Amino acid sequence: MTPEEFRRHGKQVIDWIADYLSNIESFPVRAQVAPGDVRRALPVSPPECGSSFTEILADLDRTLLPGVTHWQHPRFFAYFPSNTSGAAILGDLLSSGLGVQGMLWATSPSCTELETVAVDWLAELLGLPRHFRTDATGGGVIQDSASSASLLATLAALSRATGGVTAHAGITGRHTLYVSSETHSSLEKAARIVGLGADNVRKVPVDPATLAMDATALDRMLATDLADGAIPVMVCATVGTTSTAAIDPVRAIGEVCREREVWLHVDAAYAGVAAVCPELRWVNDGVAEYADSYVTNPHKWLLTNFDCSVLWVADRAPLLDAMSIQPEYLRNRATSSGAVIDYRDWQIPLGRRFRALKLWAVMRWYGADGLRDHIRTGAALATEFATWVARDPDFELHEPQVLSLVCLRPRWPELSTGEANDATTRLMESLNASGALYLTHTKVDGRVLLRMAIGSPTTEERHLREAWLRIREEHRKTLADLALERAT
Amino acid sequence: MTPEEFRRHGKQVIDWIADYLSNIESFPVRAQVAPGDVRRALPVSPPECGSSFTEILADLDRTLLPGVTHWQHPRFFAYFPSNTSGAAILGDLLSSGLGVQGMLWATSPSCTELETVAVDWLAELLGLPRHFRTDATGGGVIQDSASSASLLATLAALSRATGGVTAHAGITGRHTLYVSSETHSSLEKAARIVGLGADNVRKVPVDPATLAMDATALDRMLATDLADGAIPVMVCATVGTTSTAAIDPVRAIGEVCREREVWLHVDAAYAGVAAVCPELRWVNDGVAEYADSYVTNPHKWLLTNFDCSVLWVADRAPLLDAMSIQPEYLRNRATSSGAVIDYRDWQIPLGRRFRALKLWAVMRWYGADGLRDHIRTGAALATEFATWVARDPDFELHEPQVLSLVCLRPRWPELSTGEANDATTRLMESLNASGALYLTHTKVDGRVLLRMAIGSPTTEERHLREAWLRIREEHRKTLADLALERAT
Ligand SMILES: Cc1ncc(COP(=O)(O)O)c(C=O)c1O
Ligand SMILES: Cc1ncc(COP(=O)(O)O)c(C=O)c1O
Repeated sequence: MTPEEFRRHGKQVIDWIADYLSNIESFPVRAQVAPGDVRRALPVSPPECGSSFTEILADLDRTLLPGVTHWQHPRFFAYFPSNTSGAAILGDLLSSGLGVQGMLWATSPSCTELETVAVDWLAELLGLPRHFRTDATGGGVIQDSASSASLLATLAALSRATGGVTAHAGITGRHTLYVSSETHSSLEKAARIVGLGADNVRKVPVDPATLAMDATALDRMLATDLADGAIPVMVCATVGTTSTAAIDPVRAIGEVCREREVWLHVDAAYAGVAAVCPELRWVNDGVAEYADSYVTNPHKWLLTNFDCSVLWVADRAPLLDAMSIQPEYLRNRATSSGAVIDYRDWQIPLGRRFRALKLWAVMRWYGADGLRDHIRTGAALATEFATWVARDPDFELHEPQVLSLVCLRPRWPELSTGEANDATTRLMESLNASGALYLTHTKVDGRVLLRMAIGSPTTEERHLREAWLRIREEHRKTLADLALERAT
Repeated sequence: MTPEEFRRHGKQVIDWIADYLSNIESFPVRAQVAPGDVRRALPVSPPECGSSFTEILADLDRTLLPGVTHWQHPRFFAYFPSNTSGAAILGDLLSSGLGVQGMLWATSPSCTELETVAVDWLAELLGLPRHFRTDATGGGVIQDSASSASLLATLAALSRATGGVTAHAGITGRHTLYVSSETHSSLEKAARIVGLGADNVRKVPVDPATLAMDATALDRMLATDLADGAIPVMVCATVGTTSTAAIDPVRAIGEVCREREVWLHVDAAYAGVAAVCPELRWVNDGVAEYADSYVTNPHKWLLTNFDCSVLWVADRAPLLDAMSIQPEYLRNRATSSGAVIDYRDWQIPLGRRFRALKLWAVMRWYGADGLRDHIRTGAALATEFATWVARDPDFELHEPQVLSLVCLRPRWPELSTGEANDATTRLMESLNASGALYLTHTKVDGRVLLRMAIGSPTTEERHLREAWLRIREEHRKTLADLALERAT
């Protein structure tokens, strides 16, 4: 494709996206296709000859779009938001257009240095401690996901816990990792990947009311395991759990970790970015004093399209000890001088995309005040929605309600817990099948809850009102259907 | 940014990229900045208020562009190419615009099903075996990089070698991994990450002439290690090594692996895509019969911008055994039915970008014949360049010369090997500092070689002629300078 063809087709694609974003409400939120539908509509074999870009876009409309679930739809409330924004899309487009590969400082200095600046800026915006900055002992780095970030934290922790022995000798003893029942599954995945094994992932009990990790129980568990000869590697505290956005007591956990000399990793994948607002910085209480590593995802609630997850470490040495290898062909003067950062040593892949451009474009376009507005709007809409739920006798609000996530349970008079769970799931399935909105569920204490994850920049109060209406209607309808089924 | 603002700024960015690509030859290939230059030119703190997109683009021009090394420049010959193309950029742009997150089939069926189709298509284009296809026992998946792909292969191999025990118990015995001195460092990195440790990475000798792994030596090493009580996990054969594009004898290695029941992973990160041309399929000899897993990078030499690395496995079960975890909040009807693929179980991150769009756009736009043309052009240019080198008495061509990579050594009469290496490095440094071209080096048998990696879609014969002229000039100049230095 020549630059002039690119200019022409590029504008076609920009128009396509602008139209898509303008009309997004006209689509059913969740794709209405069955397994295999999209695949069957595509040719079995690759084309022998090329097509025009117009044909490619026509295929997108005809074949692919019906199978797309619209994550940017204002009535998408499933999982956590995966915000995109014009600024991020264009930052990413610039990255694709430049096509640089920033594995080393030397392979594109701007790719490395803008990343350093962008993560340092973000640390400042979130009020994270000075030692997380690259000009201090630590540093930040963009990863593809919080899962990868937590895996890296685990590797760094393992390196520190074993004095660097694992890098050459591998896993030789029993190493344990501490999470709660509410911790994201990526931590268990990390434990499996690094060779600790799922059996060595110890689940610390949570406070049944707040679902936050019990720091006293953690301390007892550590004491027992240490007495048993295990080598504790890392504790993961979560700021904003996936299920209910519960906030672990980072400070109390941190004191235990400090005392026992165990690495404290904080997974704030969803909630961490809320700290752009000074009044929400409480979510990170204890991070400055105790966290050895910290991850939050601008690709969730901070307007930066996937993938952009930022990992910070308080001390970069154990991370580099765990990750760096120097083959001949990557040797170069800048690296040998020690004056530069080579981010390949801060990640699993060797190659890297210029992802800093999109994060930088977002911070430049919105500014700190624009980002705060965005977070405040999402949190305020959630509070509003929560008051509607709390006021409605047919529903139960899960409390504490945190940030932009609202968990709720429809009430099902006369049903057992199991039956009620089935009824809630049925209600959710028909809501999602309708295409009017999309939400997901979780389970707390054996009971299925609906999760309304708010926080898309396109969501306004009217969308929540519509959604709430549909939920209530569907609840009444399901109650009636169940009564009918029981009667017959 | 509203859709209308996006439409306006999007077109600005498209124009910016089209202009950049048109003018790319006017830039020095390698950035001319010193460590810290870019960083110092950027504000220390994030902006309080937002900026216009015009200002953002102005900053890009003024501050960032001087620090960019131009990987798409026709005289970029460093490392391996990291091809981009208009089709890929626009496919990726569509992915950013849609902003879907395809961790599960259910979260956007098209994201999953197009990926399945795209990797199946690519397998067909490369003549890879049927069992690599998703409708057979195996399957393909897009990863961010060959490093991650090889890490996943190692995890799958480990799962198979231990009957799934490692997933829960972790590493408990001595597990070994087999590579050669020429294998990419990502394999040692993988061994460290999964808890095997670098000490258990066994380096099989290579044939000194071809630098290809010695299958007989591998067999002997496996026998010794088995007798010593080690559990061999995986052998990695390379099709196109990073240093000189050497091709390991996959068939002979495969026979050893079959006999000893060890997983055979084939790292064809750079060279694998050459197999779009039937006359180059010899590179994959033995893959169909013996490979348990195989990786090649469309983001290197197949016109698809980073990141797009494809991993195939012959049997997906061990990979899924190693990688899947099912938390409550990800449960859904489609997953439970077993009728769909959830690619989150095929990778480290949970979230995933709609990367199939760019690979699909590339295959649609170029068609099989366009892709073959591209590979043939790169390989033919390299052959041409190699004949110039071979004909020149001042240079030595490294042979065999493979595909689009040419390795060469300037001759330095009367210098010891060490001095000659320093002279070659000095020559390379001044070439790269000139901005006229960019190449990198490797070391073979203690001698520094220059690597000319051809294969960018923008490189024409004239660029090679210019480069060759510069290399010869610089060689003469360095010789003269050295003589002068010796005299004084
Ligand atoms: C608390 C938490 N951690 C980690 C993750 C995983 O995120 P990623 O897709 O970036 O790996 C999630 C995803 O929802 C999460 O909620
Ligand atoms: C043979 C080989 N394997 C793996 C890699 C790593 O590639 P990636 O950046 O995709 O991890 C390279 C990179 O040059 C390579 O040449």
